Amino acid sequence: MRTLKLTIAYDGTNYVGWQRQLNGSSIQQALEDAFVPLVGGETPPGVAGAGRTDAGAHAVAQVASVNVEFDLSTTVVRRALNVRLPHDIRVMSVEEALPGFHARFQATGKSYRYRIVTTEVMPPFDRLYAWHAPEPRDTEAMRRAANYLVGRHDFASFHAGATMVNGTVRNIHMVTCRDVAGGMIIDVSGDGFLRHMVRAIVGTLMDVGSGLRTPESVGDVLAARDRRAAGATAPACGLTLMEVRYEGIPVLGHRRFGRQ
Amino acid sequence: MRTLKLTIAYDGTNYVGWQRQLNGSSIQQALEDAFVPLVGGETPPGVAGAGRTDAGAHAVAQVASVNVEFDLSTTVVRRALNVRLPHDIRVMSVEEALPGFHARFQATGKSYRYRIVTTEVMPPFDRLYAWHAPEPRDTEAMRRAANYLVGRHDFASFHAGATMVNGTVRNIHMVTCRDVAGGMIIDVSGDGFLRHMVRAIVGTLMDVGSGLRTPESVGDVLAARDRRAAGATAPACGLTLMEVRYEGIPVLGHRRFGRQ
Repeated sequence: MRTLKLTIAYDGTNYVGWQRQLNGSSIQQALEDAFVPLVGGETPPGVAGAGRTDAGAHAVAQVASVNVEFDLSTTVVRRALNVRLPHDIRVMSVEEALPGFHARFQATGKSYRYRIVTTEVMPPFDRLYAWHAPEPRDTEAMRRAANYLVGRHDFASFHAGATMVNGTVRNIHMVTCRDVAGGMIIDVSGDGFLRHMVRAIVGTLMDVGSGLRTPESVGDVLAARDRRAAGATAPACGLTLMEVRYEGIPVLGHRRFGRQ
Repeated sequence: MRTLKLTIAYDGTNYVGWQRQLNGSSIQQALEDAFVPLVGGETPPGVAGAGRTDAGAHAVAQVASVNVEFDLSTTVVRRALNVRLPHDIRVMSVEEALPGFHARFQATGKSYRYRIVTTEVMPPFDRLYAWHAPEPRDTEAMRRAANYLVGRHDFASFHAGATMVNGTVRNIHMVTCRDVAGGMIIDVSGDGFLRHMVRAIVGTLMDVGSGLRTPESVGDVLAARDRRAAGATAPACGLTLMEVRYEGIPVLGHRRFGRQ
């Protein structure tokens, strides 16, 4: 068996999200379909993503692992997948991983970026990649609020969905809010994330920015362990998965020629 | 009569171009339709653009003029148009112009930007807004070639289509080629442009960049006055209209309240 590490960028606008679903196109399904020509008549291999992304959310470097038997160079695999994939999904790189590498179980951290446009009129080029929120915001108050989220906390108040097998405690390394021309960027980095967690963090920070909540109240939101305590879930289109980290996990790199 | 100057941004991906056509949606038609609620039961006014843009090409600041009779502030007009327009077309501003202002006849200059992505894999977020040309290019040779185009020349070799009433001589103020992360940007500025002219300039400069033509040969291309002498027409999606200039033409600015 041979394990490949794929780094994938996608514009999630036209997809139901990363994960395969009965209704609608998923990134995962498109990738697995793209393996069909590589495995001849056989069933294409399952592609395991580092994590789900929501319908309409994007990725510049999602990571996936796949176990294959064929003997093709990583360059040939990348090109063959991209020929078959729609242009809104691109395999940016294929690397040889240690057999058994798993993109989800071995991930040690992830970074997300959330884009907000604050100009009165939403530029058409941002409409699918940012949240349009033209009301004035207090960025400094948002920064103070963000500090309450950094560290190891129970993020149950920022979790949408069923009880998690591995609980709702996560370690957030960094939350930054910065003003950019025409808007704001919120970067969030941590060891792992719950469903809709980044979007609920953004919704809560935006409440602070508009004066609806105080920065200090974010500590109470965490303590409540109740989704109703936090702000609304910010729109998915503003969210992009920027990086998945695998600290201490070796990658064998590219294989240019057939297997020896 | 009252004349308004509209500044419009659009993602041209889903349009046949600026100009109204029998087959397919145009930006012009969408704008005229957006005036319907403002004129009650009357025929909406004709909207005159500063120039056509090609199917799939974009604009961050196309300018259009429109003569109206209604008595609404420029802010109300802008908001009403944007409520009615699809999200890939936005009226960025509405200004009061001198009665009789015409966006095309009074334009004194235009600037276009052309984006090229040179990375081996095309990032999905650029796919609708740049030309993917991953072969290595000699930017310095392209710059030398570009210098031959600056000035007052007969651009017949860069013109696609029928004979022009006002001839094929145009004055190009600036052509710059610069390397940016993952690609190249070509900016072209001039007093006016022929059909497909910027795209033919880009195609010709790219021929120089790949060694297919010498920089010096671009002088011969101009002298030939024959479209077949120049390079191929670069894809429309890489092209964006950045600015339309009206030197010496006064604008009255915004009118916040009803007409006095």
